[in-house]
Formats: sequence, structure tokens, C-alpha cells
Amino acid sequence: MKDMDISSLDVGFDVPAQPGMDESEIQTPALILDLDALERNIVKMGDYARTHGMRHRVHGKMHKSVDVAKLQEKLGGAVGVCCQKVSEAEVFVRGGIKDVLVSNQVRDPHKIDRLARLPKLGARIIVCVDDVVNVADLSAATQQHGTELDVFVEIDCGAGRCGVTTADAVVEIAQAADAAPGLRFAGIQAYQGAMQHMDSYADRKAKLDQAIAQVSEAVDALKRVDLEPDLVSGGGTGSYYFESNSGIYNELQCGSYAFMDADYGRILDAEGKRIDQGEWENALFILTSVMSHAKSDKAIVDAGLKAQSVDSGLPVVFGRDDVEYLKCSDEHGVVGDPDGVLKVNDKLRLVPGHCDPTCNVHDWYVGVRNGKVETLWPVSARGKAF
Amino acid sequence: MKDMDISSLDVGFDVPAQPGMDESEIQTPALILDLDALERNIVKMGDYARTHGMRHRVHGKMHKSVDVAKLQEKLGGAVGVCCQKVSEAEVFVRGGIKDVLVSNQVRDPHKIDRLARLPKLGARIIVCVDDVVNVADLSAATQQHGTELDVFVEIDCGAGRCGVTTADAVVEIAQAADAAPGLRFAGIQAYQGAMQHMDSYADRKAKLDQAIAQVSEAVDALKRVDLEPDLVSGGGTGSYYFESNSGIYNELQCGSYAFMDADYGRILDAEGKRIDQGEWENALFILTSVMSHAKSDKAIVDAGLKAQSVDSGLPVVFGRDDVEYLKCSDEHGVVGDPDGVLKVNDKLRLVPGHCDPTCNVHDWYVGVRNGKVETLWPVSARGKAF
Repeated sequence: MKDMDISSLDVGFDVPAQPGMDESEIQTPALILDLDALERNIVKMGDYARTHGMRHRVHGKMHKSVDVAKLQEKLGGAVGVCCQKVSEAEVFVRGGIKDVLVSNQVRDPHKIDRLARLPKLGARIIVCVDDVVNVADLSAATQQHGTELDVFVEIDCGAGRCGVTTADAVVEIAQAADAAPGLRFAGIQAYQGAMQHMDSYADRKAKLDQAIAQVSEAVDALKRVDLEPDLVSGGGTGSYYFESNSGIYNELQCGSYAFMDADYGRILDAEGKRIDQGEWENALFILTSVMSHAKSDKAIVDAGLKAQSVDSGLPVVFGRDDVEYLKCSDEHGVVGDPDGVLKVNDKLRLVPGHCDPTCNVHDWYVGVRNGKVETLWPVSARGKAF
Repeated sequence: MKDMDISSLDVGFDVPAQPGMDESEIQTPALILDLDALERNIVKMGDYARTHGMRHRVHGKMHKSVDVAKLQEKLGGAVGVCCQKVSEAEVFVRGGIKDVLVSNQVRDPHKIDRLARLPKLGARIIVCVDDVVNVADLSAATQQHGTELDVFVEIDCGAGRCGVTTADAVVEIAQAADAAPGLRFAGIQAYQGAMQHMDSYADRKAKLDQAIAQVSEAVDALKRVDLEPDLVSGGGTGSYYFESNSGIYNELQCGSYAFMDADYGRILDAEGKRIDQGEWENALFILTSVMSHAKSDKAIVDAGLKAQSVDSGLPVVFGRDDVEYLKCSDEHGVVGDPDGVLKVNDKLRLVPGHCDPTCNVHDWYVGVRNGKVETLWPVSARGKAF
């Protein structure tokens, strides 16, 4: 997909830019990727994982892009991707990713059927379960298609969503998966999603200590029934150092580190420093233009609710403290401009509040380097929600 | 586009359903339209506009669908659409809509060029201006393409975004447009966006009374320079009765009435009754499925932040008071189920908090009637933000 021909597409109607353009010519609002920053983030996390003996299964649900996933394999040594939906897995497998985890439950009979067919395209497929009924349904589908699925038992170690909470339940489901034709018990899914955005390092550590204790107990119980898991998988941008030093986890699932966003940027590292001021660079921006300045102290920009998700707060204007994004409506942002420094058609880079659902409203990433458009990548799995 | 062939598309990967399916078979999360409710809403607003002598230019930025716009023309007597972006206007014109207002400013040179070319496709194109510089730029582009654009001068009558605030400024821009080759001064854009969601009818009326006074003053000033506007356009689902009875406005721009959402549903009519309990019916739902019930009092459903926008609050479970949507993360919703009545794969209809940005994350509307899928409509202008 990286090499798709976009040269015949109409800038504006089909695509926001063409390679070779200046950044200032991009049609806005558009998602842009600072390719230098992106590559540095990917290399850095890859080095971290390698030196800590961790596999890194990058989270494709964040970027939904085959091109970014392949860059993470190439530059960051990623072992494959995880994603949250069967339709995302279909996109990644069709795009050439060979090891794909659906880090979520798949319960609908039609979706189970699609999942069970996917290994025929030449990829290892792993899926999470938290219910023995699901084990039976998945097994029946693999039998029907003559395929094999790997299974992770999901532990709810604090996110409060899917997953079982006791070691006994983990063992029961693992044994069911181990006994089920067409399934292979392959490990544990244990992602503590709820703590990733706590500002304080100590608070995050306390939550992860609890999670690690819970996962350790389950692993011990599995060992006692001779079902030691191959993989113990989890960890995000706000926690990966805890899992990496746990002695229990052996696979990370970080996503946001590659792009960053304003909400993650505010969390603090062990030294009390914001993680967007050293640990990771902002590589993802919403490029927006001033479209009205009829009031002297307010510039109206063209990135509103259809260009981003504000669930985790408003976007932040990158690299400027003289102007501030104050308000977001469907099609407009109101940018406070007390000194009247902005002019119509001026462009601003916005750091989105939350990268994942922001990427999901755009069709294209515009890759820029040194002020020039270098490439366009489709948001390959955009809208793939089922 | 209504008659596009979807029969060869793969349910799940390409489309959430096929015509003829039961509603229970739709792959979720998906947007569904209750076609009976939608048609009743469209007919009702059409009747209201006709009996009040108002043109109704339906707001296409809400649904972004050529099919819905054509239904509004057919059943509701709509005179055309308004939308917010040149790329949306391109979709509506290519889809056959003959009268399209971009109810927004267009300032980027490339977008102005695209807009000026659009009348060649056989549609009347109107655009808003709030700056005489823009008048000159638009005129130059029409000259280059040998086309004509109609121009509305935008008054900021309370939304606090684009638009001028004084009658003098309106007159100055109208005169510039009237004098500019290739442009025709066609009217006034005056949409009070900020009051639409105030719960109290009296509060909304007070804001609209101010807006109407401001618009009247501008119209009087225009009459004095012999530039009486053909059209005075504005009004939304929370205000259309005020504009319709103003004696000044002659064109409505309602959008949300057709689908409704939870945020609009909470506002009250003149008798203090919620507008989703009589005035308008909920026609738009996010269909979602239970995918995990590992905790007895919580069901995890498959509609999270990638299936909706929560900028105006969480979705509401339709037609049930025994369960409640409590929390939204990227891919999951947590539904409180204190009595444990839900089972895995049960489906719920969610009324989205805010219809516009929710429609913008989906590729398809699944039209249902009497429990069966009747049609699929593409969200034709989805993602068209530039």
C-alpha cells in the first residue's frame, strides 16, 4: 500500500497534498507526520525493547496504518501488531503483517468465522478470551475452516473492561483452550489501560505493581497445571518500563509512543519531567489554517470536531505560547490571539488531545520532512470498527 | 449513489450488513437509521417550513449523505443543502444537488479555485464572506473560470465564530460583493449556533430575539443602500420557530431534526417537554453488541470512541431504563447492568450524544424498517474536511 499511485488523485477532493509540495500548501485540516520525529521514536522504543529482552508487538489500533506498522517492523524490530477488531486484523494481514493479535474478545458468530479464516492468508492470528463459551465457539470455527488460532487468556488487571480477575478463572479458560481442537493456548493478555494517563510516576508504578502481582499469581497457577504461557503481553506508553522489568511480561504493546498526543504528553517520568519533553517527540499534528479573523483577539481555524476527538481535552498549539486553542465546535476551532499576531491562511500545528480516535477520522497521513511533503500514507484501517 | 451495487461487498470487511438481513445480524458497531422515524421527521419539518412560508435548505454537514439530502428534497421539499467545506460541496454537487451553500468562509487559494470551478457542474453555489479581501479573491477566481458565485455576508449573531457584528460591516462587504465581477450579493447568513442546545425555551428565545434584532438592523441598512437581500438564512433544530416567525428570515438551515441525538433530545419546547418526546423522533442509533460479561454487573459493548464522538456527553441506551452506558474508551463501552439482564451478543440501540461528529466516523448508514435491513447508504462526504 505504501507504493500506491496517488499521483492522479485530485488534491483537495481526494487527498490533502501531493509529494513535493511545501507544508504550507497542504489542504487543511490534515494529519501530518514529522517523519524525522516518528523515525526517532520508533528506533528509540525498538532499542529499549531489544536491550530489555522484550518482544514489541506494536499497537496498530492507534495508527491503523499498514505503512507505519511496517516502518515499526523495519526500524524498531517490531514482531507484529496488535489491534482491537477483526476488520483491523483483516487490513493488517492483507497488508502483509504476519503476526497479528486481536487484543480483544470476538464473540459475534460472523466475526468468529472471519477470524478463523484469516490464518489462510499466511499470518499467525492470536485472539483474547475471557469466557469458556467463547473457546468452544472459536474451536468450532477453526475446525470448519481447517485453521488454527492462538489464544491469549485476558486478565483484567485494572482496566475494568474485558478479562477475568482470578487465577482460577485464568486456569480454567487456559485448560479449555489447551484441550480445544484448532486452538493453541499461547499466553496471557494483561494490559492495565486505566493507569496509563495518570500524571504521577509513583501512582502509575503502584497500579502496575498490583497488576504484576496479579499476573504473577496467574502465571504460577498455570505452571502448576503444566501450562506455562509462552507469551505474557501488555504494557503501554505510560507503563512499558514496569512490564519490561517485571520478570513476568515478555511482550510489550505500546502504541502512542510513536505519534504522542497532548494527554500523554502531560504525564511525568520518574524524574518528574513531562514525557513529551525528552522521552518522546510529538510526531503527529493536525495542520490547521486560520479562516476568519473578523474579531481582533480571536482567530477561527478550520479544525473542529470532525478533524479530531476531544475526549481527552482540547488540542495544544505546537511550539507557540502566544496563541491558544480555546474552543472546539463541529467545523471550527477558536484560537485566542490576544496580540493579533495571526493572519488569515496562517497555518498552525496542533497536537491532538488523544491520538487514537483523532487518527480514526482522517483518511490520510501526510508525511513531511524539512518542510516538504515526502509521502502520503492511507489510514488503512480507518473506520474498521467491526 | 443510492443505486450503487453493494451486493458484492463482503459483510464485515466492507459493509456492516446487506439488505434483507435481520437487524440482529448487522455487524456492530454500526450506524442504523430507523427509516420510518426518519421519513416522519423529514415530512414534519417540510410541512412546517411550507406552512410558514420558509425555504428549507437542509444542513448536509450533519449527515454528509447524498441519499439523505435527496430524501429531504423529495419528502420534505428541501430547496437544496448547506454544508461547511468545499469538499462536502463537491460531493453534494457531484451527487446531483443543484443548490449548495457553503455556510462558512473559504480562504485558502486552492479551495477558492475549487469552489469557483464548481458551478460548471450545473449547480448554484453560494459561499459566506466576512472580509472584503475574500470578496476580491473569490471574484478573481470566478473571472478565471468564467463562472458566477453567489455570496452571503455572514453576521456573527452570537455563535462567536466567523462573521461580522455590525450593520456597517455588513453593508461594506455586501457593496463590495455587489460590485465584484463574477459575484452576486445574494443574502445574509446568520446562524446563532451557541444557543441551540440551551435547555430552556425562554433562554433560547431571549438569545434569538437579540439575533433577530441584530439581523433586522443589518437588513434595514442594506435596504437603505438599495441592497435588500434575497435570502436571510439561518435557524437550527433548537430555534427554527423563532426564525420562521421573525418576519426577517426566509430560509431555514436545520440539520439534526432529521436524526436527533441525546444532547438535542434534552432541550425543552415551549411547554417544557423534551423535544425527543414528541417534537422529533430518534431516527439515528449506534447499534452495539455485548462482547464480554465477565463481571456480573457490567456488560462490555463494542462501541467506544471510534464509533462515536462524546464531545456532548455519553450515548443513551434507547428504550431501556434497566441498563446504562457508563463509560467510553477507545474500543469499548461499559454498560451498567445491575440485574445482569444482558447476555453476550445481545444488541443495544444507542442514541449518540452528538449526531454530526458521530456520523463522520462511520462509512455507512444501515437503513432498517420493521426489524429488517432495507438499504445501505454511504456517508458520502465522510472525512471531507478540506
